[in-house]
Amino acid sequence: MSDTEFDVLAIGDAVVDVIAPADEALLASEGVPKGSMRVIDRAEADRLYARMGPAQETSGGSAANSMAGIAALGGRAAFVGQTGSDQLGKIFAHDIRAQGVQFDTPPLTTDIATGQCLILVTPDAQRTMNTYRGASEYLSVDALDADLIARAKIVYLEAYLWDHEAPRAAMKRAADLAHEAGRKVAFTLSDIACIDRHRADFVGLLESDRIDILFGNAEEARALAGSADLETAVAELARHAGLCVITCGAEGAMAVQKDATAAVPATPPRALVDTTGAGDLFAAGFLAGHAWGRPLEASLRLGAAAAAEVIADYGARPLGALDGLAAN
Amino acid sequence: MSDTEFDVLAIGDAVVDVIAPADEALLASEGVPKGSMRVIDRAEADRLYARMGPAQETSGGSAANSMAGIAALGGRAAFVGQTGSDQLGKIFAHDIRAQGVQFDTPPLTTDIATGQCLILVTPDAQRTMNTYRGASEYLSVDALDADLIARAKIVYLEAYLWDHEAPRAAMKRAADLAHEAGRKVAFTLSDIACIDRHRADFVGLLESDRIDILFGNAEEARALAGSADLETAVAELARHAGLCVITCGAEGAMAVQKDATAAVPATPPRALVDTTGAGDLFAAGFLAGHAWGRPLEASLRLGAAAAAEVIADYGARPLGALDGLAAN
Repeated sequence: MSDTEFDVLAIGDAVVDVIAPADEALLASEGVPKGSMRVIDRAEADRLYARMGPAQETSGGSAANSMAGIAALGGRAAFVGQTGSDQLGKIFAHDIRAQGVQFDTPPLTTDIATGQCLILVTPDAQRTMNTYRGASEYLSVDALDADLIARAKIVYLEAYLWDHEAPRAAMKRAADLAHEAGRKVAFTLSDIACIDRHRADFVGLLESDRIDILFGNAEEARALAGSADLETAVAELARHAGLCVITCGAEGAMAVQKDATAAVPATPPRALVDTTGAGDLFAAGFLAGHAWGRPLEASLRLGAAAAAEVIADYGARPLGALDGLAAN
Repeated sequence: MSDTEFDVLAIGDAVVDVIAPADEALLASEGVPKGSMRVIDRAEADRLYARMGPAQETSGGSAANSMAGIAALGGRAAFVGQTGSDQLGKIFAHDIRAQGVQFDTPPLTTDIATGQCLILVTPDAQRTMNTYRGASEYLSVDALDADLIARAKIVYLEAYLWDHEAPRAAMKRAADLAHEAGRKVAFTLSDIACIDRHRADFVGLLESDRIDILFGNAEEARALAGSADLETAVAELARHAGLCVITCGAEGAMAVQKDATAAVPATPPRALVDTTGAGDLFAAGFLAGHAWGRPLEASLRLGAAAAAEVIADYGARPLGALDGLAAN
C-alpha cells in the first residue's frame, strides 16, 4: 500500500445552500415535515424561493460540508462533485478550495444550473431542506481520477446521490477503485427517504462488503436493518460493515465494530442557532479522527465537538478554522 | 400635496455582498486601508476573490440595505437599482422584495454581471469593502417612475453611484421630480473617497438647495465643508441642507438644523461581529423616524438601535423583523 496524500476523498452533491429563517406556518402550508429533506424540481424551487424570506447563500452539500469540516480541523480532504457553469458553481468551487479542499471536477458545459438547497430554519434551530439537484445529477464516472482515489485513506460516499444513474455508477466505481488500492469505503445513509427508495441496493452494498464504514442516525439504522430495536439494528448492520457510526441527536453518538463499541454524549453547542450541517460535521470529525488512527471514542468526541460548532452559527460549514478542536 | 404611499424611495447600488473573515495580513498585502471602500474592476475582483476564504453571499448595497432596514422596522420603502440578468441579480431582487421593499427595476438585457462587493471582515469586526459595480453603473433615467417618486415622502440618494454619468443623471432627475412633487431629498456622502472625487459637485447640490437632508460621518462632514473642526463643518453644511445627520462611530450621532440640534450616544451592540451595514441601518432608523414625524432625538435613537442590531451579526441587513425597535 503506497503512501496516501488525503485523509478522505468524498463524492457528493455540489450545491449552494439558500438559507432563510422561516416560521412554522410556512412549513405547514408547504406540507413538509420539519427536519426532513425533499428533492424538488426547478419549477418547484422557483415557487418555494418566491415564498421564502431574505436569504443568505453559502456552499453546502452533505459530503462537501464534511470535507470542508475535515480541512477546518486540519485534515487533508478532496471532493468530487458536479457544478454547472454559472455563478453559483463558481461560488461552490471557490468556497471548497478556499477551505483547503482539493476540488478539480470541471463544471458542466451545458446550461444545467448548479444545484441549490432551499433551507428553512425555524426558531427552534431545526432545518428543513428542499433540494433542487441541478448539475449534481449529471456527475459521471468521467469525473473520477483513479490515481486521486488511490491517494486517499477513505473514500466517502453519500446516499443523497443514489437517485440518479450517472452518479450512482460513479460512486460504485469509486468504491471499487478504492478497494483495489487497498483503501476503505465509507457510506452515509443521508436521509430516511433515501433508504425508502433504495433499501435493497444499500443492503446489497453492505452484504457484498463494499462498505467498510457506515454512517447514519438511529432512525436510518433501524430502517435499513428493518428492526425497530436500535441495538438489534446496529448489531445487524455491523455484521457486514466493519464499523457502524450512529448519531442519536442530542443523545450523542456511538461506534460499533464486531469486537468493540464506544459511545459519547452530544457536545452542548455555544448557541442553538441552526442545526444545518450538524450531521455532516459530525462525520467530518469522526472521519478525521479515524483516518488519523485515533481510538473510536476519541473520533466520536471529535465528531461531537465539530457538530456543536456548526450548530452555533447559521450555515452548514464552519466560519473559520477548527484545528483547536483536533488538539483535544 | 397628495398622500404618500412610501416613507422613503432610494436609488443606489444593487450589489450582492461576498463576505469572508480575513486576517490583517491579507489587508496589508492588498495595501487597502482597513474600513475603507474601493472600487475595483472585474479582473481585480476575480483576483481578490481567489485570495479570500470561504464566503457567504447576502444582498447588499448601501441605500438598498437602508431600505431593507426601513422595511424591517415596519416602514414602507421602495428601491431603484440596476441588476444584471444573472443568478446574483435574482438573489438581489428576491431578498429586497422578500423583505417587503417595492423593487421594480428590470434587469439589464446585456451580459454585464450584477455588482458584487467583496468584504473582508477582520477579527475586530471592521469591514473593508472592494466593490465591482457591474450592472449598477448602467442605471439610467429610464429606470425612474415619476409617479412612484411622487408617492414617497423622501427620496434617498447615495454618493457611491455618483462616479458614472448614467446613474448620476438618474439621481439628479429623481431629486428634481421629488421636489416638483413637494417631497424631500436626502443624500448620503457614502465614503471619503467619493467626496475626494466629487466635492465640487456635492457642494453645488447643497448650494442649489437640491438636498434637504444630508447624511455623513464626521470625517465626511469635515471633508465636504473643508473644515478641520466638526462643529464648524456641520454648521456650514446645515446652512444649505435643512438638516444634517452626522454619525461619529462609537461616540454616537447628531442631527443639526438651523434652529435645533440633537445628539445621542451609540447603542451598545449585543455582540461585536461585523460592522458592515452599520451606517446604512443607522440611516434606515433615522429616515423611518423622520418620515413618521418623530422628533430629531427619537429618530437618532432609532438609527442607533438599528445600527447596533446589524453589528451583532454577519452581513449588512437584519436577519429578521426589527419592528420591536420602532415601538420605543
